Amino acid sequence: MINVYKIGGNVIDNAEALDAFLKDFAQLPSPKVLIHGGGKLATRLSGRLGIETHMVDGRRITDRETLDVVTMVYGGLVNKQIVAKLQALGCNAIGLTGADANVIPATRRKPNPIDYGYVGDIDTARINVSFIQTLLEAGITPVFCALCHEDGSMLNCNADTIAQSVATAMATVGETRLTFCFEQLGVMGNLDDPSSLIPTITPELYAALKADGTINSGMIPKIDNAYRAIENGVQCVTIKHSKNIGNEVGTTICN
Amino acid sequence: MINVYKIGGNVIDNAEALDAFLKDFAQLPSPKVLIHGGGKLATRLSGRLGIETHMVDGRRITDRETLDVVTMVYGGLVNKQIVAKLQALGCNAIGLTGADANVIPATRRKPNPIDYGYVGDIDTARINVSFIQTLLEAGITPVFCALCHEDGSMLNCNADTIAQSVATAMATVGETRLTFCFEQLGVMGNLDDPSSLIPTITPELYAALKADGTINSGMIPKIDNAYRAIENGVQCVTIKHSKNIGNEVGTTICN
Repeated sequence: MINVYKIGGNVIDNAEALDAFLKDFAQLPSPKVLIHGGGKLATRLSGRLGIETHMVDGRRITDRETLDVVTMVYGGLVNKQIVAKLQALGCNAIGLTGADANVIPATRRKPNPIDYGYVGDIDTARINVSFIQTLLEAGITPVFCALCHEDGSMLNCNADTIAQSVATAMATVGETRLTFCFEQLGVMGNLDDPSSLIPTITPELYAALKADGTINSGMIPKIDNAYRAIENGVQCVTIKHSKNIGNEVGTTICN
Repeated sequence: MINVYKIGGNVIDNAEALDAFLKDFAQLPSPKVLIHGGGKLATRLSGRLGIETHMVDGRRITDRETLDVVTMVYGGLVNKQIVAKLQALGCNAIGLTGADANVIPATRRKPNPIDYGYVGDIDTARINVSFIQTLLEAGITPVFCALCHEDGSMLNCNADTIAQSVATAMATVGETRLTFCFEQLGVMGNLDDPSSLIPTITPELYAALKADGTINSGMIPKIDNAYRAIENGVQCVTIKHSKNIGNEVGTTICN
């Protein structure tokens, strides 16, 4: 069983939460893969450098200067700090962008209808699965940041999409589970009531919860993404709080 | 034969020279390893962020903020741009810091007599040679930046020293050559006369050229470094202009 974990920007941005997560992650059994974002730090560095941040539908418009910022922050600062910390915790991690060993080839997004700049759409079928397998078999844990590449240029990429693509690619060679860690316990019946966590979502329940408004706009794309991964071979997808990486608390989405 | 190449900051800093070098490098036969610096870009980013740069004997004093800058510039911007460009040139490169796959463990330098901050001294005997071999056997070209690590922290490191240490470590498993590429043709009899390039330096010639003042202070540490590598098993060391990476023009240092 290959486990692919994604941690969101709110965990990256909180040193204590990140350290606690990495401590738990280091102790999880291998083979495992970690994918991280880092958007808030990129926005902050852009601000210090006098580069304006433009977002459209939650996606960063990535001009030349912003590409340099995300390459520095995602591929350098955040990725290498995570790798160094995991090494100290006894987890033999390796930090990767999609360009390294050509592991995540992509295509630059067309400028119509919105010109996102240096943003890539992953070509999941071309993900270098055998290289990831070589690392996992050597007991090494790949840590991916949200960068892919095409034709000599790094490209910005959504970390959730990288997680879904890597999990889908690994599912072609072995049973794979995908876990999204964020700042909520999972899918909640009522956001104000921690006891309302919904442990399992089936397609039937999903349809019912959408119909009665329990699952709202923010969560729908996450669950739709999860079902896309499952339709493409991932065994199951879990959405949970980063503090619960080592236990069963969370929402599992399955067929 | 394993070839280890180091490119200096002046090549990194000149987009045309770097592109020309990478084009030639991509065509060199494997197995090969590339090591790069990037100090000038780090100094420039520090300036933009209002962080003062302090150098002592040509070494950067690396406080917490400066460590973040070099992690971003060396491990992110420069390393990933080189990797993406090599991928586009058909060279399957992977970018690495010393923390990745624990490939270059180091010890943080003691604060006496000079406190360099987050600076590491490489433990050459602990370099993860088998991981580098695994990459080379898979046809992958490792590209190292000047960062090592200890106990959960990245550490700044001199790129020449990384090159010498990696070459020395690889020499324990196979014939290894080390090439330093910079902005001169090699060791010159007279810096103003391109025809005065000295093609080969033996220990006897080195002693004579030092005695008569032909080899001066700037070149002495480079040649001393070269002899250190040779004494530790590297077959030969060449110092040459980055534009001559594909030919024989340069100074070869041998026993």
